Amino acid sequence: MPDVHSTSDNGLLADGRYVFPVRVYYEDTDSGGVVYYANYFKFAERARTEMMRSLGVESQKLMTDDGIALAVRHCEADFRKPARLDDLLTVSTRILGIGGASVDVEQIIASGETNLVTINIKLACMSMAGGPARMPDHLRETLERICDNSQQD
Amino acid sequence: MPDVHSTSDNGLLADGRYVFPVRVYYEDTDSGGVVYYANYFKFAERARTEMMRSLGVESQKLMTDDGIALAVRHCEADFRKPARLDDLLTVSTRILGIGGASVDVEQIIASGETNLVTINIKLACMSMAGGPARMPDHLRETLERICDNSQQD
Amino acid sequence: MPDVHSTSDNGLLADGRYVFPVRVYYEDTDSGGVVYYANYFKFAERARTEMMRSLGVESQKLMTDDGIALAVRHCEADFRKPARLDDLLTVSTRILGIGGASVDVEQIIASGETNLVTINIKLACMSMAGGPARMPDHLRETLERICDNSQQD
Amino acid sequence: MPDVHSTSDNGLLADGRYVFPVRVYYEDTDSGGVVYYANYFKFAERARTEMMRSLGVESQKLMTDDGIALAVRHCEADFRKPARLDDLLTVSTRILGIGGASVDVEQIIASGETNLVTINIKLACMSMAGGPARMPDHLRETLERICDNSQQD
Repeated sequence: MPDVHSTSDNGLLADGRYVFPVRVYYEDTDSGGVVYYANYFKFAERARTEMMRSLGVESQKLMTDDGIALAVRHCEADFRKPARLDDLLTVSTRILGIGGASVDVEQIIASGETNLVTINIKLACMSMAGGPARMPDHLRETLERICDNSQQD
Repeated sequence: MPDVHSTSDNGLLADGRYVFPVRVYYEDTDSGGVVYYANYFKFAERARTEMMRSLGVESQKLMTDDGIALAVRHCEADFRKPARLDDLLTVSTRILGIGGASVDVEQIIASGETNLVTINIKLACMSMAGGPARMPDHLRETLERICDNSQQD
Repeated sequence: MPDVHSTSDNGLLADGRYVFPVRVYYEDTDSGGVVYYANYFKFAERARTEMMRSLGVESQKLMTDDGIALAVRHCEADFRKPARLDDLLTVSTRILGIGGASVDVEQIIASGETNLVTINIKLACMSMAGGPARMPDHLRETLERICDNSQQD
Repeated sequence: MPDVHSTSDNGLLADGRYVFPVRVYYEDTDSGGVVYYANYFKFAERARTEMMRSLGVESQKLMTDDGIALAVRHCEADFRKPARLDDLLTVSTRILGIGGASVDVEQIIASGETNLVTINIKLACMSMAGGPARMPDHLRETLERICDNSQQD
């Protein structure tokens, strides 16, 4: 267990995967009795945000200090099985690659050993003024630290 | 029918009441089979926004031109009966009073002739810089135009 | 204008495309000043629901009468430009193909002539008891009526 | 520290108050730069749900085993100061009273020592078949255990 540590919000970073727990509340479900499809993207963003925070990067500070945000440029989701009220899910996040102004992320939402939803996200570095922006060095270095770990898997 | 006209988003302003239709979608419901309680406040805000728009006042322009927003300072809701998927609701909005920097609003959400939820809202005029702000004259005059109508009822 | 008619919720069905208006409210935006990425999927579902309703198919009745729901099995979204508070958007929905138990849908969210977000959805016919279900004939025939139209484009 | 124990979801039950942490994500904010007003009710419900879970009561089991749900019958909120992106809030929940088929709850949402929002909720015991229901004994006894504690304060 060489590279495991827990983080402020119950997340766990281990070998290039950030595993973050999410509980399903009424707000997340719909009258079909399952989690509403768009809400899995909320779970995924909470996990990305906490992964970044566990590495010392906060969304608000990125806006204020660097004038940028990591915006979702493209996303895909494959919904295999539904989650339900009171379920305790995990979101497992892995950085697949880092480009000049973008990051590719894979996120698997599971209930116990069962994968429910797989999400693939391309984040783009955007200037708060509008339009794409070069990724700040400190952000790139932070992301590469995790990305390397994940490739050792 | 002296004071009735339809508005851009299907709303209808008549004798001091602005009646706005809202359809219930999966996103609004929860696994109890009914509309999630906090979502009635979304319906209410859509109706307030369209009432203002029908009077020529847009939220974004209030921020940009006047540097203010009408923020919710207090709200109450009485939930009598639930709304369900596919229901076509109406939100009936009435301005009860206008203070120096605040507005009191009553909103009744109904399905046909049945009142489901009654919401009372106190809006406060807030500076975008933070803190309370005096209400711009054009906004006060616009609101008083409706408030007078409602008191004739 | 051979095949155009307006529908109950301001949508317009024309030559295999269902065009549905959506207004952006505070609830849809985030502190980045734009529409939150997952919320475009809500807009898309409203449009799919109204397209179906304009064809006589209601979600609640599908559940009650046929014991099925059209669930999202896969989705993709390409976010090109952001929508903002007060924007009046259109969602243009087109059925690309119909399988044994699934439907492929393309949805383009635009502001005026500018395409903001393109969404591709695969819907699967699901039994309310869980698991896939064969599509009821009346549903298939209804969908094929639109799908044919769209292929004439 | 006579009656303090931590719970599964980071909540802490102490002397009749259940204190539950909530992090603010993009999904919770709006383009005014603050948490959208209706979303504080989501935070409040998460805290109520976790308080109940820490006492052994789960929403899904209440529905399945007892055929009831605790529905919000009335709510009030006083919004004093706004929360913002990345804020780590606490929701402090206290049961004020228990009636024949209802429960009165006070919830204070704070950032550090600063109270932002105070919410008062009346929950009603509802039959899943519709209409009010008598509160199951096990639920009443559980709630009274906390309510007693809170009155010792």
